[in-house]
Amino acid sequence: MIALMPSPILKFCSNCAAPVAHRVPPGDSKPRYLCDNCGEIHYQNPKLVVGCVPVWEDRILLCRRAIEPRYGYWTLPAGFMENDETAGEGALRETLEEAGARVELGAPFTMLSVPRVNQVHVFFCAKLVDLTFAPGEESLEVALFEESAIPWKEIAFRTVGLTLKHWFEDRKRGSFGFHAGDIVPPAPT
Amino acid sequence: MIALMPSPILKFCSNCAAPVAHRVPPGDSKPRYLCDNCGEIHYQNPKLVVGCVPVWEDRILLCRRAIEPRYGYWTLPAGFMENDETAGEGALRETLEEAGARVELGAPFTMLSVPRVNQVHVFFCAKLVDLTFAPGEESLEVALFEESAIPWKEIAFRTVGLTLKHWFEDRKRGSFGFHAGDIVPPAPT
Repeated sequence: MIALMPSPILKFCSNCAAPVAHRVPPGDSKPRYLCDNCGEIHYQNPKLVVGCVPVWEDRILLCRRAIEPRYGYWTLPAGFMENDETAGEGALRETLEEAGARVELGAPFTMLSVPRVNQVHVFFCAKLVDLTFAPGEESLEVALFEESAIPWKEIAFRTVGLTLKHWFEDRKRGSFGFHAGDIVPPAPT
Repeated sequence: MIALMPSPILKFCSNCAAPVAHRVPPGDSKPRYLCDNCGEIHYQNPKLVVGCVPVWEDRILLCRRAIEPRYGYWTLPAGFMENDETAGEGALRETLEEAGARVELGAPFTMLSVPRVNQVHVFFCAKLVDLTFAPGEESLEVALFEESAIPWKEIAFRTVGLTLKHWFEDRKRGSFGFHAGDIVPPAPT
């Protein structure tokens, strides 16, 4: 599941329960949540979103979102990478959870920083192993689309649209590369 | 700065200061820190480490670590990606902080999952813009190494060693690609 939540506001220290301050620590350059009681600094860092481009012949599998944000819009299967897994394992897990689909994963295809929401999105190339798929709890429907049928105006996230664009361009060229880039304001993610 | 700390143990809710539990929430599959007082679930996710391979002619810039872990061992400049920056901006910042060096960043070169410590390491290709460099606070010294002089037995992290290995192999081939992989147990990171 892709969500666009910013880093949470911390009110209390998770180590000692004292109220936390939000200021630049000595020797640092950015404001942090820090505890004047126990000394703990609570760093916040970007999150990885991992997913894939599941392909069957000349069609790509998309999921229509059953959750906000972008309820009803189409996305590639993707979600927050979890502890104790690799990026590839996360992409496989999200594809199974959201689309009920099993894929054979290829190489990473896109890596896109989205600093506005403190995320980096990584999509892998993937081949569906069969035509067994079904919407998970976070999807309204799951379907295969040819290039001419892609609902470009109803794509949920810019990283998904850009990944699909690269994929069709690379297919036309006959060679799939790796594409890195940044999604920067002002347009929404 | 690369550190190998695992995700922190949470004792109290950062939202309401009540003690947190650690169990699998309804509908979830993994144990989370959750607050029975305010209902907040405190997710923990992998962190991105971003760095680069700074090159000057046929030599590569390495930093000798002034901090634990791996005090005295050599590393490529790299560290935790921060909120509000892209992966590339993070790599530039860490290179300046740790090596006092300015580089022109190229494409991402390696992306390596390290699930044992819940990290993904991304190293970019980079060219030093000049020979001005100097150790930052976290480095004992910074130096340029030809391939034959690389201190292979004193490299701080497996992701750094593997990135260097790919770099020299690609240079020999005459073509730099993108290399993704996983660093899995049992050997140390």
